[in-house]
Amino acid sequence: MSKVQPALLRGFDQEYLPQEQLQFNRLVEIIRRNFELFGFVPIETPAAERKEVLTSKGGVEKEIYALTRLAADDDEASIKGALHFDLTVPLARYVAMRERELPFPFRRYQIQKVWRGETPQARKGRFREFYQCDIDIINRDKLSYLAEAEIPSVIHSVFREMGVGEFRIRINNRKVLKGVLQGFNVSDDNSAVVLRSLDKIEREKSSVVLEDLSRAGMSDAQASRLFSFMSTKRDTNETLGALSELASQNEMCKTGTAELRELVAAVRKFGVPESAFCIDLAVVRGLDYYTGTIYETTLNSYPELGSICSGGRYDDLASYFTDTKLPGVGISIGLTRLFSKLREVGLLHAVEKTPTEALVVTMDHRYLDWYLDIARLLREAGVNTEVYLESAKLRNQLAYADKKGFRLALIAGQSEVERNVVQIKDLSAQTASEFPLAEVVSAVKSALEDSIKREAADGIGP
Amino acid sequence: MSKVQPALLRGFDQEYLPQEQLQFNRLVEIIRRNFELFGFVPIETPAAERKEVLTSKGGVEKEIYALTRLAADDDEASIKGALHFDLTVPLARYVAMRERELPFPFRRYQIQKVWRGETPQARKGRFREFYQCDIDIINRDKLSYLAEAEIPSVIHSVFREMGVGEFRIRINNRKVLKGVLQGFNVSDDNSAVVLRSLDKIEREKSSVVLEDLSRAGMSDAQASRLFSFMSTKRDTNETLGALSELASQNEMCKTGTAELRELVAAVRKFGVPESAFCIDLAVVRGLDYYTGTIYETTLNSYPELGSICSGGRYDDLASYFTDTKLPGVGISIGLTRLFSKLREVGLLHAVEKTPTEALVVTMDHRYLDWYLDIARLLREAGVNTEVYLESAKLRNQLAYADKKGFRLALIAGQSEVERNVVQIKDLSAQTASEFPLAEVVSAVKSALEDSIKREAADGIGP
Repeated sequence: MSKVQPALLRGFDQEYLPQEQLQFNRLVEIIRRNFELFGFVPIETPAAERKEVLTSKGGVEKEIYALTRLAADDDEASIKGALHFDLTVPLARYVAMRERELPFPFRRYQIQKVWRGETPQARKGRFREFYQCDIDIINRDKLSYLAEAEIPSVIHSVFREMGVGEFRIRINNRKVLKGVLQGFNVSDDNSAVVLRSLDKIEREKSSVVLEDLSRAGMSDAQASRLFSFMSTKRDTNETLGALSELASQNEMCKTGTAELRELVAAVRKFGVPESAFCIDLAVVRGLDYYTGTIYETTLNSYPELGSICSGGRYDDLASYFTDTKLPGVGISIGLTRLFSKLREVGLLHAVEKTPTEALVVTMDHRYLDWYLDIARLLREAGVNTEVYLESAKLRNQLAYADKKGFRLALIAGQSEVERNVVQIKDLSAQTASEFPLAEVVSAVKSALEDSIKREAADGIGP
Repeated sequence: MSKVQPALLRGFDQEYLPQEQLQFNRLVEIIRRNFELFGFVPIETPAAERKEVLTSKGGVEKEIYALTRLAADDDEASIKGALHFDLTVPLARYVAMRERELPFPFRRYQIQKVWRGETPQARKGRFREFYQCDIDIINRDKLSYLAEAEIPSVIHSVFREMGVGEFRIRINNRKVLKGVLQGFNVSDDNSAVVLRSLDKIEREKSSVVLEDLSRAGMSDAQASRLFSFMSTKRDTNETLGALSELASQNEMCKTGTAELRELVAAVRKFGVPESAFCIDLAVVRGLDYYTGTIYETTLNSYPELGSICSGGRYDDLASYFTDTKLPGVGISIGLTRLFSKLREVGLLHAVEKTPTEALVVTMDHRYLDWYLDIARLLREAGVNTEVYLESAKLRNQLAYADKKGFRLALIAGQSEVERNVVQIKDLSAQTASEFPLAEVVSAVKSALEDSIKREAADGIGP
């Protein structure tokens, strides 16, 4: 029979081996647990929405995948449906649909795949199918700046537990940005281009940014003064000081700076350590959507990964669907991208990947009942336990245990069964001891603890 | 501005409020934990695969949704991609692609959405987008019958923890079915139609099934004998006895009965209680795919829900992709359907749905630091805690807590803060007590325990 080539679609190709999938799932669990710890509740929206819902905001059509039945009469989904490209538009539709049933402020989290018809670039961690992990706080009519101040404490809690090393939450304010541009006499027409140039400060050489600025109509002197103001390294209080000087010149900068100062004070109250956040005037984000505070997050040792968690404050979530004004603040972790980057730089070693803790080797199928009893006892004690069910030599069963990554093998042949003992073998330390059947659960538990501790000490585990 | 109607696509409409979503997620967690407890490891495959992969087996084209970019040059995914309609074809492709990297026997679980262009019928729990939760055990060349015997113990473990009441795993064997039909002189040409009729025994009146059988070319006497043989209620040993009598007449029935007898003995060894499984000759399943043991699972009090977990043994998983012979056994839980049915019959009350355990009410924003400190202490102790960040009257904050479903509210105004105490209010019992700040964590923990216990006693909780 001629075979079909088993292959993946380009950009739909972030598929992992089971041990990597376990690590991915553990990151999801960390994110979920921390979101819930702060009172965010889960929602999940369908992968496909009505096209008019997805395109309500405009400008995204070319990235959207629509659905078409392959070989049949068209159904509704086939005529009207398309895959969501983010979780914000579905959230807006969700809140507009269920406004009366939801408690406000509505704090939701959402962890789902999204699909975008972009050009995949594995090097940049850009794929056509990827996970987003979002939180948003939405209220009716008005939203306290305290919601904006809480967001960095959630980000901090997530990434601290993830163990990805030192990171910094970079905070800026769209009004400050607008005010700074006014202060440097950048016209409104040019401000979009100038912001895009400034967005490159972290990644590009100064000459590239300066050339960009002059192409945006700024004189060399003007460009160089703006560049210097924006790229100077200052601590949080110094930045607020520099902004205050500039703020005396225009109202927008004054408002923005006051907001930023208030926000920073509150972020401190929320317990985010000074080392984990800063004001970064070069943080720009999307041009239309955000109206106040904006965030990016970078790993101190890997700035080249770019932002691993971004978002900001917006004035109205669902204006395309409802007249109710819904101001909000939210962030998104692009988990597929983050995972691919953490793997690339070797930061995943800290994420536990043991699938199953104990393998009960079956030396002699006459004793199957005995093996199954041990497995049952261990599972009742919460130990993930597999019984090797095929007939195979001990050597082959241990090779299987190695390949799958078990911590322990439980071995008993005729001599052990007759004496009612079992051998517990630590597969990485290559040590083994015998225990009476009555002690097997506690012995396995303590052997697992030893194995985890040793791995941590060896630097190859959590 | 004219508004877009916020609405869902038909069949892509199983979207829940947060408290229901929490219950759904808890079922997913129970399924995942039990799968891992038995040594199954996770994989996740892309939502979209190459069309030729999905259609390799044939006969499914009209249910498949292909992708098309909405307004742009076609990309590869747009030309060649379509959404998977089950998790078995992607598993076959996955194993064929990664054969050398995987440990065999390969025990994988997979919990993902699938999409099918069927006519949605909410009454039957049939949707176009739904979750499947699959496990399979796959080996190279041969697979022990013990793998088939282990499957019911996993099903038992999952549904016991789910708390959905008594259930029964119905086991049959395709060879037995074939043998029985031969024993009743049903020709091979008619066997597919006859099996489809027999499949209705549980759901339809006897007259409907008998009429079906006569349409399939059986004489009234023949049909009535077959119907009586298949529909007689017997316990497991009686069924094996009845089959043995029939088995003397033909080889196929003999082989199948021997397999079934061996399997049943092993299922008992795996610790599945007699009350939780049975042989059911009317279990038929898909006609082509399964070659040996087949399973269905029904709730004793709700047989009308049909099977909530089904599967079976197959001879070769990935023959369309590789020459390696990969026999396997697997089952699938249609979770979206199960969830909609459990909700319908009121069986979800047993599933915990508290999103966030404690709300720190903010009576007076001068004491924000104080409130935030309490929240931090509680979160460090693992208690999901939210601080109410907007300015609102106590009454409104408590109304919010009720609507969201918090168990506890922590209340402190000037008098409490000055005395360094906090009031802990149980929101369902409507009782409140004051505790010194130093005892707040332990007091909250014990108040949470009380709240859970009381709910259980009232029969409105776990």
